[in-house]
Amino acid sequence: MKLLKLDACVTASNDRDADALRAKTKACGTLLINVMSSPGAGKTTLLSALIRALPQLDIAVMEADIESDVDAKAIEALGARAVQVHTSGMCHMDAGMTTAAFDAIDGPPPDLAFLENVGNLICPAEFDTGAGKNLMILSVPEGDDKPLKYPLMFRESDALVISKLDARPYFDFDLDACMARARKLNPAVRIFPVSAKTGEGMEALVQWLLAETAAWKEA
Amino acid sequence: MKLLKLDACVTASNDRDADALRAKTKACGTLLINVMSSPGAGKTTLLSALIRALPQLDIAVMEADIESDVDAKAIEALGARAVQVHTSGMCHMDAGMTTAAFDAIDGPPPDLAFLENVGNLICPAEFDTGAGKNLMILSVPEGDDKPLKYPLMFRESDALVISKLDARPYFDFDLDACMARARKLNPAVRIFPVSAKTGEGMEALVQWLLAETAAWKEA
Repeated sequence: MKLLKLDACVTASNDRDADALRAKTKACGTLLINVMSSPGAGKTTLLSALIRALPQLDIAVMEADIESDVDAKAIEALGARAVQVHTSGMCHMDAGMTTAAFDAIDGPPPDLAFLENVGNLICPAEFDTGAGKNLMILSVPEGDDKPLKYPLMFRESDALVISKLDARPYFDFDLDACMARARKLNPAVRIFPVSAKTGEGMEALVQWLLAETAAWKEA
Repeated sequence: MKLLKLDACVTASNDRDADALRAKTKACGTLLINVMSSPGAGKTTLLSALIRALPQLDIAVMEADIESDVDAKAIEALGARAVQVHTSGMCHMDAGMTTAAFDAIDGPPPDLAFLENVGNLICPAEFDTGAGKNLMILSVPEGDDKPLKYPLMFRESDALVISKLDARPYFDFDLDACMARARKLNPAVRIFPVSAKTGEGMEALVQWLLAETAAWKEA
Protein backbone atom coordinates (compact mmCIF):
# COMPACT_ATOMS: atom_id res chain seq x y z
CA MET A 1 0.00 0.00 0.00
CA LYS A 2 2.78 2.38 0.96
CA LEU A 3 4.65 1.51 -2.20
CA LEU A 4 1.65 2.32 -4.37
CA LYS A 5 1.24 5.75 -2.75
CA LEU A 6 4.87 6.57 -3.26
CA ASP A 7 4.67 5.46 -6.89
CA ALA A 8 1.74 7.83 -7.44
CA CYS A 9 3.76 10.66 -5.88
CA VAL A 10 6.78 9.88 -8.03
CA THR A 11 4.59 9.72 -11.13
CA ALA A 12 3.00 13.14 -10.47
CA SER A 13 6.41 14.71 -9.98
CA ASN A 14 7.66 12.94 -13.11
CA ASP A 15 4.72 14.30 -15.12
CA ARG A 16 5.65 17.86 -14.12
CA ASP A 17 9.29 17.26 -15.12
CA ALA A 18 8.13 15.76 -18.42
CA ASP A 19 5.96 18.77 -19.25
CA ALA A 20 8.87 21.08 -18.44
CA LEU A 21 11.20 19.16 -20.76
CA ARG A 22 8.60 19.21 -23.56
CA ALA A 23 8.30 23.00 -23.20
CA LYS A 24 12.09 23.31 -23.27
CA THR A 25 12.54 21.19 -26.40
CA LYS A 26 9.70 23.13 -28.04
CA ALA A 27 11.51 26.39 -27.33
CA CYS A 28 14.74 24.89 -28.73
CA GLY A 29 13.01 23.60 -31.86
CA THR A 30 14.18 20.07 -31.09
CA LEU A 31 11.80 17.16 -31.60
CA LEU A 32 12.62 14.59 -28.92
CA ILE A 33 11.55 11.04 -29.77
CA ASN A 34 11.50 8.34 -27.10
CA VAL A 35 12.41 5.00 -28.73
CA MET A 36 11.26 1.94 -26.79
CA SER A 37 11.51 -1.80 -27.47
CA SER A 38 12.53 -5.18 -26.08
CA PRO A 39 16.23 -5.94 -25.79
CA GLY A 40 17.64 -6.77 -29.20
CA ALA A 41 14.72 -5.49 -31.28
CA GLY A 42 17.15 -3.40 -33.31
CA LYS A 43 16.92 0.11 -31.81
CA THR A 44 20.54 1.03 -32.55
CA THR A 45 20.47 -0.55 -36.01
CA LEU A 46 17.32 1.40 -36.90
CA LEU A 47 18.68 4.68 -35.52
CA SER A 48 21.93 4.17 -37.45
CA ALA A 49 19.95 3.66 -40.67
CA LEU A 50 17.85 6.77 -39.96
CA ILE A 51 20.93 8.92 -39.31
CA ARG A 52 22.30 7.84 -42.70
CA ALA A 53 18.93 8.47 -44.40
CA LEU A 54 18.44 11.95 -42.91
CA PRO A 55 21.57 13.99 -43.77
CA GLN A 56 19.38 17.13 -43.95
CA LEU A 57 18.69 16.97 -40.19
CA ASP A 58 21.03 17.62 -37.28
CA ILE A 59 20.50 14.54 -35.11
CA ALA A 60 21.63 13.63 -31.60
CA VAL A 61 21.11 10.35 -29.78
CA MET A 62 20.87 9.70 -26.04
CA GLU A 63 21.72 6.06 -25.36
CA ALA A 64 20.29 4.70 -22.12
CA ASP A 65 21.85 1.46 -20.94
CA ILE A 66 22.23 -0.27 -17.62
CA GLU A 67 25.86 -0.85 -18.51
CA SER A 68 28.18 -0.69 -21.56
CA ASP A 69 28.67 1.98 -24.20
CA VAL A 70 28.68 -0.12 -27.38
CA ASP A 71 25.59 1.64 -28.77
CA ALA A 72 26.85 5.19 -28.23
CA LYS A 73 30.12 4.28 -29.96
CA ALA A 74 28.19 2.91 -32.96
CA ILE A 75 26.21 6.18 -33.22
CA GLU A 76 29.30 8.39 -32.94
CA ALA A 77 30.98 6.39 -35.69
CA LEU A 78 28.23 7.75 -37.99
CA GLY A 79 29.13 11.33 -37.10
CA ALA A 80 26.05 12.06 -34.98
CA ARG A 81 26.32 13.45 -31.48
CA ALA A 82 25.80 10.82 -28.81
CA VAL A 83 25.30 10.90 -25.05
CA GLN A 84 25.71 7.67 -23.10
CA VAL A 85 23.45 7.38 -20.05
CA HIS A 86 24.06 4.66 -17.49
CA THR A 87 20.90 4.02 -15.51
CA SER A 88 22.54 2.30 -12.50
CA GLY A 89 20.33 -0.74 -12.92
CA MET A 90 17.13 1.28 -13.48
CA CYS A 91 14.76 -0.41 -15.92
CA HIS A 92 13.49 2.77 -17.58
CA MET A 93 14.25 6.45 -18.17
CA ASP A 94 12.16 9.04 -16.33
CA ALA A 95 11.79 12.71 -17.21
CA GLY A 96 14.51 13.90 -14.83
CA MET A 97 17.05 11.48 -16.27
CA THR A 98 16.01 12.44 -19.80
CA THR A 99 16.38 16.15 -19.02
CA ALA A 100 19.90 15.54 -17.68
CA ALA A 101 20.75 13.59 -20.84
CA PHE A 102 19.29 16.28 -23.10
CA ASP A 103 21.29 18.97 -21.28
CA ALA A 104 24.45 16.92 -21.83
CA ILE A 105 24.20 17.16 -25.63
CA ASP A 106 27.14 19.31 -26.78
CA GLY A 107 26.66 22.29 -29.09
CA PRO A 108 23.50 23.89 -30.49
CA PRO A 109 20.09 22.16 -30.08
CA PRO A 110 19.67 19.46 -32.74
CA ASP A 111 16.62 19.25 -35.02
CA LEU A 112 15.89 15.75 -33.84
CA ALA A 113 16.99 14.01 -30.63
CA PHE A 114 16.38 10.30 -30.15
CA LEU A 115 16.24 8.85 -26.67
CA GLU A 116 17.11 5.16 -26.96
CA ASN A 117 15.35 3.95 -23.83
CA VAL A 118 16.37 0.83 -21.86
CA GLY A 119 15.43 -2.39 -23.67
CA ASN A 120 12.20 -3.34 -21.87
CA LEU A 121 8.59 -3.61 -23.08
CA ILE A 122 7.04 -2.81 -19.70
CA CYS A 123 8.49 -0.16 -17.37
CA PRO A 124 9.48 2.51 -19.95
CA ALA A 125 5.84 2.73 -21.05
CA GLU A 126 4.82 3.79 -17.53
CA PHE A 127 6.99 6.92 -17.39
CA ASP A 128 6.52 10.04 -19.50
CA THR A 129 10.08 11.00 -20.47
CA GLY A 130 9.07 14.42 -21.75
CA ALA A 131 9.51 13.36 -25.36
CA GLY A 132 7.40 14.99 -28.07
CA LYS A 133 6.66 11.60 -29.63
CA ASN A 134 6.90 7.98 -28.51
CA LEU A 135 8.12 5.42 -31.02
CA MET A 136 8.04 1.71 -30.29
CA ILE A 137 9.90 -1.03 -32.16
CA LEU A 138 8.61 -4.60 -32.26
CA SER A 139 10.84 -7.06 -34.12
CA VAL A 140 9.47 -9.95 -36.18
CA PRO A 141 11.26 -12.68 -34.14
CA GLU A 142 9.44 -11.53 -30.97
CA GLY A 143 6.10 -12.67 -32.35
CA ASP A 144 2.82 -11.14 -33.50
CA ASP A 145 1.14 -11.74 -30.11
CA LYS A 146 3.07 -9.04 -28.25
CA PRO A 147 0.25 -6.43 -28.37
CA LEU A 148 -1.86 -8.90 -26.37
CA LYS A 149 0.81 -9.33 -23.71
CA TYR A 150 2.33 -5.85 -23.37
CA PRO A 151 -0.57 -3.57 -24.26
CA LEU A 152 0.49 -0.39 -22.44
CA MET A 153 3.48 0.40 -24.66
CA PHE A 154 1.37 -0.09 -27.79
CA ARG A 155 -1.20 2.31 -26.32
CA GLU A 156 1.39 4.95 -25.44
CA SER A 157 3.19 4.98 -28.81
CA ASP A 158 2.60 7.47 -31.61
CA ALA A 159 4.46 5.22 -34.05
CA LEU A 160 5.04 1.48 -34.15
CA VAL A 161 7.98 0.24 -36.20
CA ILE A 162 7.79 -3.47 -37.01
CA SER A 163 11.48 -4.28 -37.56
CA LYS A 164 13.53 -7.15 -39.01
CA LEU A 165 10.90 -7.60 -41.72
CA ASP A 166 13.55 -9.43 -43.79
CA ALA A 167 13.41 -12.25 -41.20
CA ARG A 168 9.70 -12.81 -41.86
CA PRO A 169 10.17 -15.91 -44.05
CA TYR A 170 11.99 -17.49 -41.12
CA PHE A 171 9.38 -16.93 -38.42
CA ASP A 172 5.64 -17.49 -38.05
CA PHE A 173 4.73 -13.82 -37.90
CA ASP A 174 1.30 -12.68 -39.06
CA LEU A 175 1.88 -9.02 -40.00
CA ASP A 176 -1.80 -8.24 -40.59
CA ALA A 177 -2.85 -9.80 -37.29
CA CYS A 178 -0.11 -7.92 -35.44
CA MET A 179 -1.14 -4.59 -36.98
CA ALA A 180 -4.81 -5.25 -36.21
CA ARG A 181 -3.96 -6.03 -32.57
CA ALA A 182 -1.92 -2.82 -32.26
CA ARG A 183 -4.67 -0.71 -33.85
CA LYS A 184 -7.28 -2.23 -31.54
CA LEU A 185 -5.25 -0.86 -28.59
CA ASN A 186 -4.37 2.41 -30.29
CA PRO A 187 -6.43 3.36 -33.37
CA ALA A 188 -4.28 6.44 -34.08
CA VAL A 189 -0.91 4.66 -34.10
CA ARG A 190 1.19 5.03 -37.27
CA ILE A 191 2.65 1.67 -38.25
CA PHE A 192 5.85 1.26 -40.26
CA PRO A 193 6.91 -2.29 -41.18
CA VAL A 194 10.61 -2.01 -42.09
CA SER A 195 13.85 -3.82 -42.62
CA ALA A 196 16.86 -1.67 -41.75
CA LYS A 197 18.96 -4.37 -43.43
CA THR A 198 17.32 -4.29 -46.88
CA GLY A 199 15.83 -0.79 -46.65
CA GLU A 200 12.28 -2.07 -47.19
CA GLY A 201 9.71 0.35 -45.76
CA MET A 202 12.31 2.85 -44.54
CA GLU A 203 11.23 5.66 -46.86
CA ALA A 204 7.79 6.01 -45.25
CA LEU A 205 9.38 6.24 -41.81
CA VAL A 206 11.90 8.82 -43.03
CA GLN A 207 9.09 10.96 -44.49
CA TRP A 208 7.12 10.73 -41.26
CA LEU A 209 10.16 11.89 -39.25
CA LEU A 210 10.76 14.81 -41.63
CA ALA A 211 7.11 15.89 -41.37
CA GLU A 212 7.02 15.57 -37.58
CA THR A 213 10.30 17.45 -37.16
CA ALA A 214 9.02 20.31 -39.32
CA ALA A 215 5.64 20.37 -37.54
CA TRP A 216 7.35 20.50 -34.11
CA LYS A 217 9.31 23.63 -35.13
CA GLU A 218 6.24 25.34 -36.56
CA ALA A 219 3.45 24.62 -34.14
CA MET B 1 15.74 8.79 -1.14
CA LYS B 2 12.50 7.57 0.40
CA LEU B 3 11.93 5.29 -2.57
CA LEU B 4 15.32 3.65 -2.14
CA LYS B 5 14.67 2.95 1.54
CA LEU B 6 11.33 1.41 0.75
CA ASP B 7 12.88 -0.73 -1.96
CA ALA B 8 15.43 -2.06 0.53
CA CYS B 9 12.62 -2.85 2.95
CA VAL B 10 10.60 -4.59 0.26
CA THR B 11 13.64 -6.60 -0.82
CA ALA B 12 14.40 -7.83 2.71
CA SER B 13 10.79 -8.90 3.17
CA ASN B 14 10.84 -10.54 -0.25
CA ASP B 15 14.01 -12.48 0.65
CA ARG B 16 12.26 -13.91 3.72
CA ASP B 17 9.24 -14.92 1.63
CA ALA B 18 11.56 -16.49 -0.96
CA ASP B 19 13.38 -18.58 1.63
CA ALA B 20 10.03 -19.74 3.03
CA LEU B 21 8.83 -20.82 -0.42
CA ARG B 22 12.10 -22.67 -1.08
CA ALA B 23 11.68 -24.57 2.20
CA LYS B 24 8.10 -25.38 1.28
CA THR B 25 8.95 -26.70 -2.20
CA LYS B 26 11.81 -28.70 -0.66
CA ALA B 27 9.38 -30.33 1.77
CA CYS B 28 7.00 -31.05 -1.14
CA GLY B 29 9.78 -32.52 -3.30
CA THR B 30 8.97 -30.02 -6.06
CA LEU B 31 11.82 -28.34 -7.92
CA LEU B 32 10.64 -24.84 -8.80
CA ILE B 33 12.46 -23.26 -11.75
CA ASN B 34 12.13 -19.55 -12.45
CA VAL B 35 12.27 -19.02 -16.24
CA MET B 36 13.26 -15.51 -17.31
CA SER B 37 13.82 -13.89 -20.72
CA SER B 38 12.98 -10.97 -22.98
CA PRO B 39 9.52 -10.88 -24.54
CA GLY B 40 9.35 -13.31 -27.43
CA ALA B 41 12.53 -15.28 -26.62
CA GLY B 42 10.51 -18.49 -26.75
CA LYS B 43 9.73 -19.31 -23.12
CA THR B 44 6.40 -20.99 -23.86
CA THR B 45 7.73 -22.82 -26.92
CA LEU B 46 10.67 -24.17 -24.91
CA LEU B 47 8.46 -25.21 -21.97
CA SER B 48 6.06 -26.94 -24.36
CA ALA B 49 8.97 -28.90 -25.88
CA LEU B 50 10.24 -29.83 -22.41
CA ILE B 51 6.82 -31.06 -21.27
CA ARG B 52 6.71 -33.33 -24.33
CA ALA B 53 10.30 -34.52 -23.71
CA LEU B 54 9.77 -35.31 -20.01
CA PRO B 55 6.75 -37.67 -19.79
CA GLN B 56 8.36 -39.32 -16.73
CA LEU B 57 7.93 -36.13 -14.67
CA ASP B 58 4.75 -34.58 -13.32
CA ILE B 59 5.09 -30.95 -14.45
CA ALA B 60 3.11 -27.80 -13.65
CA VAL B 61 3.57 -24.34 -15.15
CA MET B 62 2.76 -20.95 -13.63
CA GLU B 63 2.33 -18.41 -16.41
CA ALA B 64 2.93 -14.82 -15.36
CA ASP B 65 1.62 -12.23 -17.78
CA ILE B 66 0.53 -8.63 -17.51
CA GLU B 67 -2.54 -9.55 -19.52
CA SER B 68 -3.83 -12.43 -21.71
CA ASP B 69 -3.90 -16.18 -21.13
CA VAL B 70 -2.63 -17.47 -24.48
CA ASP B 71 0.42 -19.14 -22.88
CA ALA B 72 -1.50 -20.98 -20.16
CA LYS B 73 -3.90 -22.33 -22.77
CA ALA B 74 -0.97 -23.63 -24.86
CA ILE B 75 0.46 -25.43 -21.81
CA GLU B 76 -2.88 -26.98 -20.83
CA ALA B 77 -3.33 -28.26 -24.38
CA LEU B 78 -0.26 -30.45 -23.70
CA GLY B 79 -1.93 -32.01 -20.65
CA ALA B 80 0.21 -30.24 -18.02
CA ARG B 81 -1.33 -28.33 -15.14
CA ALA B 82 -1.20 -24.58 -15.67
CA VAL B 83 -1.87 -21.57 -13.46
CA GLN B 84 -2.35 -18.18 -15.13
CA VAL B 85 -1.08 -15.25 -13.08
CA HIS B 86 -2.00 -11.70 -14.07
CA THR B 87 0.50 -9.28 -12.59
CA SER B 88 -1.68 -6.14 -12.88
CA GLY B 89 1.00 -4.34 -14.84
CA MET B 90 3.87 -5.47 -12.58
CA CYS B 91 7.10 -6.04 -14.49
CA HIS B 92 8.29 -9.02 -12.45
CA MET B 93 7.16 -11.76 -10.07
CA ASP B 94 8.16 -11.51 -6.41
CA ALA B 95 8.22 -14.30 -3.83
CA GLY B 96 4.76 -13.53 -2.46
CA MET B 97 3.18 -13.64 -5.91
CA THR B 98 5.08 -16.86 -6.69
CA THR B 99 3.90 -18.47 -3.44
CA ALA B 100 0.30 -17.59 -4.28
CA ALA B 101 0.75 -19.09 -7.75
CA PHE B 102 2.36 -22.25 -6.37
CA ASP B 103 -0.47 -22.68 -3.87
CA ALA B 104 -2.95 -22.39 -6.74
CA ILE B 105 -1.63 -25.53 -8.48
CA ASP B 106 -4.39 -28.15 -8.25
CA GLY B 107 -3.71 -31.66 -6.95
CA PRO B 108 -0.56 -33.23 -5.48
CA PRO B 109 2.79 -31.34 -5.63
CA PRO B 110 4.41 -31.81 -9.05
CA ASP B 111 7.99 -33.03 -9.52
CA LEU B 112 8.85 -29.93 -11.46
CA ALA B 113 7.14 -26.53 -11.47
CA PHE B 114 8.14 -23.89 -13.96
CA LEU B 115 7.46 -20.24 -13.25
CA GLU B 116 7.29 -18.45 -16.59
CA ASN B 117 8.20 -14.97 -15.38
CA VAL B 118 7.14 -11.73 -17.13
CA GLY B 119 9.10 -11.15 -20.36
CA ASN B 120 11.75 -8.67 -19.20
CA LEU B 121 15.56 -8.90 -18.95
CA ILE B 122 15.86 -6.44 -16.08
CA CYS B 123 13.39 -6.37 -13.19
CA PRO B 124 12.80 -10.13 -12.72
CA ALA B 125 16.54 -10.57 -12.02
CA GLU B 126 16.26 -8.24 -9.02
CA PHE B 127 13.69 -10.30 -7.12
CA ASP B 128 14.29 -13.73 -5.60
CA THR B 129 11.08 -15.62 -6.42
CA GLY B 130 11.86 -18.49 -4.07
CA ALA B 131 12.71 -20.80 -6.95
CA GLY B 132 15.25 -23.59 -6.47
CA LYS B 133 16.93 -22.72 -9.76
CA ASN B 134 16.93 -19.74 -12.12
CA LEU B 135 16.94 -20.42 -15.84
CA MET B 136 17.37 -17.65 -18.38
CA ILE B 137 16.61 -17.81 -22.10
CA LEU B 138 18.42 -15.61 -24.62
CA SER B 139 17.28 -16.01 -28.22
CA VAL B 140 19.63 -15.73 -31.18
CA PRO B 141 17.76 -12.79 -32.81
CA GLU B 142 18.33 -10.66 -29.68
CA GLY B 143 22.07 -10.57 -30.31
CA ASP B 144 25.27 -11.87 -28.72
CA ASP B 145 25.93 -8.56 -26.90
CA LYS B 146 23.14 -8.96 -24.35
CA PRO B 147 25.42 -10.14 -21.50
CA LEU B 148 27.20 -6.77 -21.78
CA LYS B 149 23.95 -4.84 -21.51
CA TYR B 150 21.86 -6.83 -19.02
CA PRO B 151 24.51 -8.43 -16.80
CA LEU B 152 22.47 -9.02 -13.64
CA MET B 153 20.20 -11.70 -15.08
CA PHE B 154 23.19 -13.58 -16.49
CA ARG B 155 24.81 -13.42 -13.04
CA GLU B 156 21.69 -14.68 -11.24
CA SER B 157 20.99 -17.65 -13.54
CA ASP B 158 22.00 -21.25 -12.87
CA ALA B 159 21.33 -22.15 -16.49
CA LEU B 160 21.39 -20.13 -19.71
CA VAL B 161 19.43 -21.49 -22.65
CA ILE B 162 20.43 -19.92 -25.97
CA SER B 163 17.27 -20.46 -28.01
CA LYS B 164 16.21 -20.25 -31.67
CA LEU B 165 19.57 -21.74 -32.67
CA ASP B 166 17.98 -22.71 -36.00
CA ALA B 167 17.79 -18.97 -36.84
CA ARG B 168 21.57 -18.60 -36.53
CA PRO B 169 22.26 -18.60 -40.29
CA TYR B 170 19.91 -15.64 -40.55
CA PHE B 171 21.47 -13.39 -37.88
CA ASP B 172 24.97 -12.19 -37.02
CA PHE B 173 25.21 -14.09 -33.75
CA ASP B 174 28.62 -15.16 -32.42
CA LEU B 175 27.77 -18.12 -30.17
CA ASP B 176 31.28 -18.49 -28.78
CA ALA B 177 31.53 -14.78 -27.96
CA CYS B 178 28.10 -14.84 -26.30
CA MET B 179 29.01 -17.86 -24.15
CA ALA B 180 32.35 -16.30 -23.18
CA ARG B 181 30.58 -13.07 -22.13
CA ALA B 182 28.06 -15.02 -20.04
CA ARG B 183 30.79 -17.10 -18.37
CA LYS B 184 32.80 -13.98 -17.56
CA LEU B 185 29.80 -12.74 -15.55
CA ASN B 186 28.97 -16.15 -14.11
CA PRO B 187 31.67 -18.84 -14.36
CA ALA B 188 29.38 -21.56 -12.93
CA VAL B 189 26.48 -21.02 -15.37
CA ARG B 190 25.39 -24.09 -17.36
CA ILE B 191 24.84 -23.12 -21.01
CA PHE B 192 22.49 -24.98 -23.35
CA PRO B 193 22.33 -23.79 -26.98
CA VAL B 194 19.08 -25.24 -28.33
CA SER B 195 16.46 -25.12 -31.02
CA ALA B 196 13.04 -26.15 -29.75
CA LYS B 197 11.98 -26.22 -33.41
CA THR B 198 14.55 -28.77 -34.70
CA GLY B 199 15.33 -30.41 -31.33
CA GLU B 200 19.04 -29.54 -31.57
CA GLY B 201 20.64 -29.40 -28.12
CA MET B 202 17.45 -30.31 -26.27
CA GLU B 203 18.70 -33.66 -24.93
CA ALA B 204 21.43 -32.04 -22.78
CA LEU B 205 18.85 -29.69 -21.27
CA VAL B 206 16.44 -32.56 -20.62
CA GLN B 207 19.18 -34.54 -18.85
CA TRP B 208 20.12 -31.53 -16.73
CA LEU B 209 16.49 -31.09 -15.66
CA LEU B 210 16.17 -34.78 -14.77
CA ALA B 211 19.36 -34.65 -12.68
CA GLU B 212 18.37 -31.43 -10.91
CA THR B 213 14.85 -32.70 -10.17
CA ALA B 214 16.26 -35.90 -8.66
CA ALA B 215 18.91 -33.99 -6.67
CA TRP B 216 16.25 -31.63 -5.27
CA LYS B 217 14.22 -34.54 -3.90
CA GLU B 218 17.26 -36.23 -2.37
CA ALA B 219 19.30 -33.47 -0.78
